[in-house]
Amino acid sequence: MKVFKNSTKQILIGLFIFLLSCQQTLFAEDGYELWLRYPPVENEVQSEHIKSLFSKVVIKDTSPTYAVIKDELGRAAKGLINKEIPFSNLVTSDVSLVIGTPTDFNEFKTSEIDNSLRSVGEDGYLIQYTEDAKTLMIVSNTPVGALYGAFYLLRIIQSNLQFQELLPIKASPKITDRILNHWDNLDRTVERGYAGFSIWDWHKLPGYIDQRYIDYARANASIGINGTVLTNVNANALVLTAPYIEKVKALADVFRPYGLKVYLTARFSSPIEIGGLETADPLNDEVRAWWKTKADEIYKSIPDFGGFLVKANSEGQPGPQNYDRTHADGANMLAAAVAPYNGIVIWRAFVYSHEVPDDRAKQANNEFEPLDREFMENVFIQVKNGPIDFQPREPFHPLFGAMSKTKLALELQITMEYLGQATNLVYLAPLFKECLDSKTFRPTKQSTVATVIDGSGFNQTQSVIAGVSNIGNDRNWTGHLFGQSNWYAFGRLAWDHALSSEKIADEWISLTFGNDNKMKQSISKIMMKSRESVVNYSTPLGLHHIMGRGHHYGPGPWVEGGRPDWTSLYYHRADSLGIGFDRTSTGSNALSQYAPEISQEWSDPKTCPEKYLLWFHHLPWSFKMNSGNPLWDELCYHYDTGIKSVGEIKKQWAELKSYIDHQRFHQVEMLLNTQEKEARWWRNSCLLYFQTFSKMEFPGNIEQPAGNLEYYKNLRFPYAPGIRPSW
Amino acid sequence: MKVFKNSTKQILIGLFIFLLSCQQTLFAEDGYELWLRYPPVENEVQSEHIKSLFSKVVIKDTSPTYAVIKDELGRAAKGLINKEIPFSNLVTSDVSLVIGTPTDFNEFKTSEIDNSLRSVGEDGYLIQYTEDAKTLMIVSNTPVGALYGAFYLLRIIQSNLQFQELLPIKASPKITDRILNHWDNLDRTVERGYAGFSIWDWHKLPGYIDQRYIDYARANASIGINGTVLTNVNANALVLTAPYIEKVKALADVFRPYGLKVYLTARFSSPIEIGGLETADPLNDEVRAWWKTKADEIYKSIPDFGGFLVKANSEGQPGPQNYDRTHADGANMLAAAVAPYNGIVIWRAFVYSHEVPDDRAKQANNEFEPLDREFMENVFIQVKNGPIDFQPREPFHPLFGAMSKTKLALELQITMEYLGQATNLVYLAPLFKECLDSKTFRPTKQSTVATVIDGSGFNQTQSVIAGVSNIGNDRNWTGHLFGQSNWYAFGRLAWDHALSSEKIADEWISLTFGNDNKMKQSISKIMMKSRESVVNYSTPLGLHHIMGRGHHYGPGPWVEGGRPDWTSLYYHRADSLGIGFDRTSTGSNALSQYAPEISQEWSDPKTCPEKYLLWFHHLPWSFKMNSGNPLWDELCYHYDTGIKSVGEIKKQWAELKSYIDHQRFHQVEMLLNTQEKEARWWRNSCLLYFQTFSKMEFPGNIEQPAGNLEYYKNLRFPYAPGIRPSW
Repeated sequence: MKVFKNSTKQILIGLFIFLLSCQQTLFAEDGYELWLRYPPVENEVQSEHIKSLFSKVVIKDTSPTYAVIKDELGRAAKGLINKEIPFSNLVTSDVSLVIGTPTDFNEFKTSEIDNSLRSVGEDGYLIQYTEDAKTLMIVSNTPVGALYGAFYLLRIIQSNLQFQELLPIKASPKITDRILNHWDNLDRTVERGYAGFSIWDWHKLPGYIDQRYIDYARANASIGINGTVLTNVNANALVLTAPYIEKVKALADVFRPYGLKVYLTARFSSPIEIGGLETADPLNDEVRAWWKTKADEIYKSIPDFGGFLVKANSEGQPGPQNYDRTHADGANMLAAAVAPYNGIVIWRAFVYSHEVPDDRAKQANNEFEPLDREFMENVFIQVKNGPIDFQPREPFHPLFGAMSKTKLALELQITMEYLGQATNLVYLAPLFKECLDSKTFRPTKQSTVATVIDGSGFNQTQSVIAGVSNIGNDRNWTGHLFGQSNWYAFGRLAWDHALSSEKIADEWISLTFGNDNKMKQSISKIMMKSRESVVNYSTPLGLHHIMGRGHHYGPGPWVEGGRPDWTSLYYHRADSLGIGFDRTSTGSNALSQYAPEISQEWSDPKTCPEKYLLWFHHLPWSFKMNSGNPLWDELCYHYDTGIKSVGEIKKQWAELKSYIDHQRFHQVEMLLNTQEKEARWWRNSCLLYFQTFSKMEFPGNIEQPAGNLEYYKNLRFPYAPGIRPSW
Repeated sequence: MKVFKNSTKQILIGLFIFLLSCQQTLFAEDGYELWLRYPPVENEVQSEHIKSLFSKVVIKDTSPTYAVIKDELGRAAKGLINKEIPFSNLVTSDVSLVIGTPTDFNEFKTSEIDNSLRSVGEDGYLIQYTEDAKTLMIVSNTPVGALYGAFYLLRIIQSNLQFQELLPIKASPKITDRILNHWDNLDRTVERGYAGFSIWDWHKLPGYIDQRYIDYARANASIGINGTVLTNVNANALVLTAPYIEKVKALADVFRPYGLKVYLTARFSSPIEIGGLETADPLNDEVRAWWKTKADEIYKSIPDFGGFLVKANSEGQPGPQNYDRTHADGANMLAAAVAPYNGIVIWRAFVYSHEVPDDRAKQANNEFEPLDREFMENVFIQVKNGPIDFQPREPFHPLFGAMSKTKLALELQITMEYLGQATNLVYLAPLFKECLDSKTFRPTKQSTVATVIDGSGFNQTQSVIAGVSNIGNDRNWTGHLFGQSNWYAFGRLAWDHALSSEKIADEWISLTFGNDNKMKQSISKIMMKSRESVVNYSTPLGLHHIMGRGHHYGPGPWVEGGRPDWTSLYYHRADSLGIGFDRTSTGSNALSQYAPEISQEWSDPKTCPEKYLLWFHHLPWSFKMNSGNPLWDELCYHYDTGIKSVGEIKKQWAELKSYIDHQRFHQVEMLLNTQEKEARWWRNSCLLYFQTFSKMEFPGNIEQPAGNLEYYKNLRFPYAPGIRPSW
């Protein structure tokens, strides 16, 4: 067959030789190993340090978690220095490393250790040398604390030539319950999942334990995540039936040694759907008894079951309001069922209705503030970082600080529903930090979102942070290799919200790509600017919720019709006079839900941070910005800066080719090309669309938006991932 | 937290140590590498042979396929002998291996080679030493032929200590178009797919080329598969729109160097759904023009596009009969559109309707036989192996041999919709062979299904065989590790249907697990009995279509209601008098569709092979079988033998632990436990159910069926894989 001309042939040959060159490390570096790669240590001094550290390791056989620690150290030693570790049960004089609790070793029963351990809690650990400086000790109150210590040690020996200088270490988490929320359905689709499908292979459970379950637990334990909600908040009652409880138990058994508790989402109408009752009224005795019996059944199989996560009376989900009961009535009923087992109920504050005339941004506060003092001790109200829905940028949610008698949990979204999903490189730590570090001024002048949720502002002993998972069955877990950095960052911030984004990026880069300084700095720069880049090319200056309908993939500033609060027009309110949502006292007055210090500053467009400007203000196209530019020009510059930034990232990445294995390098390279196209699509769509209102010229010094608005409006993505076609 | 008692704790520790021991080879042997593992050769003599064979390899740079050959040889050498191959362009005296066509090398332009090449066609190859026995040559008419030769060479050097003894080789495929049919939907669900989801990540195409695409092409090329239909026969017109053609093109570009052509399924109503026409009538000029233009558009992007596969007027799919036209009218319209490009149309014979009163088993013949002589040259009628639907055992389809003027293709199902899906170990080569080797007695007394479809009975120059893929995005591609053997067997039989099941198993075992003789024999025994085992515990003695409704997972002999031809009662016809479907002249007379030699033999229950007995006969429960047992007892023995056979397989597998890496061993071990449960579930359900008709005791010497029929009837599998919940 002679179909090709010679020139085409040459191009194809070239393409193929290139593609093949990317395959050489096929089984070595495809991203599956995450940040637990343990590549051979090339620096000899470092290698000797590690050899001597692992020359004789003492750890007991008394806990499955200790078996896990041994396994992980064994993997690390095999990878880093190609050695088997001699493990022992007994402390002798030649021991290099000893790991355990004071119950395990008399050597740990010193008053100094006892003192230190008192303040690190169940999950904390100490890493320090013995007095003679010959033996390193990882000491903790529980085996899981030791596991966290071991993972810390593995992290620093991979990242630091002089890791000994970091010792002694005393560490404990600031938040007690650090939980991934999987929006995974029983049919293995994942709502807002962009990395393939659910890693839970329900059909083959409980008999078949996929290797992924074990590696998932390892990855979570390595960054301190200690809880996982297996199922979607848009819940399915079937998961509470006996056959599924047996499957969940199989997972819980795998996860337990890694300190990872399982939780399930509870569909509020379960008593009707699988219980045969005629009501799910939380004050009905039969309903209450049904949930108690259900909890008993679950805890019989899974004694350390974490509890229930509930989305009720939100986006069509059933809830207590169906029976004219309050969210507190509903949450407390479930809380009573799990309380005997120390279980908790996590109740989402993400409620809004298009039938309520008030600004959607205000509705959670309207609903929940009056219920302060009404929730049981083991109820947490889980609040999204911002008042709308995981936008590229939102101000913090006004509920933080507004409920002093209720335990609040923070819900972050690791999966990037609105930030380009899995085709975009966006490092989310700066977004998470922006929320955590936000000053709430309540309950005290010093309060931040972080101190509200870690409970330190309220003397809480238990606290919850949740991240909506970006994990799927794609080989590299997260679709985009850099999506791994967001899973990592969530875990690290859940453990210690005081860590900086830069520090976390630095850790992740070392573990993911190695320790070359030039490479590390370059990747760090890419990561640190990536979030601002996507804000700029999609929703700058406080714009929000202007994405495509349903799939939320790409721009849709023109989206209108149907439920108003699911349109873009509801949020950007562009017209011939200007753009933005007036949430001051002349508008919806959402600002009144914040502390006075904030509402005062943000009420005046001159003092409102420009990054939130159009979130709170409707301003004329000619409004003069801090730069001196009129708003329209400034908007154009932001969009243009966004896409230019992606171009820079592409260039910086291209320069890293020699530092990174072919396959992972090429994966990111291909997706950066896609991201650049998508950034241009966002910019062109939004600017062409908003220009129909502003009627102003594009500034001459930006790349002129090309294409035709109608073309962009007519693009359709019927099988975009993360939604089911029938949704 | 002290939740566990000590004994539980010990069990958990034990479990964990066991689980961890399975992780040691995590990245080495998870099944992803299929039969292309290239493990280090331990035998020194063998290793020296390979080193000398690869000491200097000459191959040109003139084709992307040659780049692919170099890449594959390079991988193999790296894996097998840990060497880089020195490649060269020029034949010199020290060359060990030279690969190419006579166009590439003058050395190949001998009359002997010329002679041999004349009979091997586009895909065949010669492997032989030069006269001085110093240089091995792989010579072919096309680069793809050389690729097949290279894969053959790699296969034999891994399996045979004295591979030189097999030379010279002259090989060519018996069937020209060896095609996988993917029933993959655009939302990445896979109809009747049990290995996760579609490997086609449509959303990220064309920009992102997943490594899997390349490895998929390698795997197919290695066994001679040269075509792939990317989309489900229950087709979606969207794949024919410009954005999807661009995505398909990206895949075609990846696959081309591997000799793998892409095909698409064509939804018959596409001219309406995406073309804006008001009809899809195949005799309408606008419709015909629309398809011609569509074909032009596709071929402009994909010059070697294979053609269309069509399911029309079947199970709700649109087709020419919607317009009172014939299947020939529909197929010929599409055939005319692709004919200018040497494309083909593959039109499925799988048609039946519950509105037609005749036996479903007869309907394909009723429809298609009268259309013989009416199809264009480039139309193939694709016929399933049996007349119902991929049952564990069916007699061959009576259409084979019944149409002498029409090109028939064989459709086999690699994915095991009715054979336990991905939780069961079933080696399908014996099933495929049973069909291929069936004597049709038409067109000649010597004819078999194989000679009908390879075209040798009709002097056809082109021939088609199709296998419905079992491939998904599970790490090991096929869900069950042994599912790989069925992909492999399909490819090998498509190339050469004369190969024995044993020979193919032997090859696959060597490549998958190594060459230890004891191990090989043991695995071969497991594989060779596995298919009869599933027939016995699910549908022995010619029973068929008695599985659960919808999901087709597990037993459902009681299924009734709705479309009669989708019930079990339609097929087993059990009553107080007996069991089985009378397809003799006293019944549906389906037997009349076969050649007289067959219908005569099978019409008499005494001469009908017992394996087909209840397919063709309704017989009293007391009917005396060849064994002397009454039918009821014999039925019970078959079910019991089936489950005992699974027990034996489990035992045999357990004995192989030391021969197989931990992870793959454990994967299969877990699934064998599941399979044993499922076998028992099948046996108990069917025997308890049929006993309600036979009213006879179970023979005393079998394990007595336990459990309660109502319990089995009430089992539900709402999220069984392979179907969408909405189906």
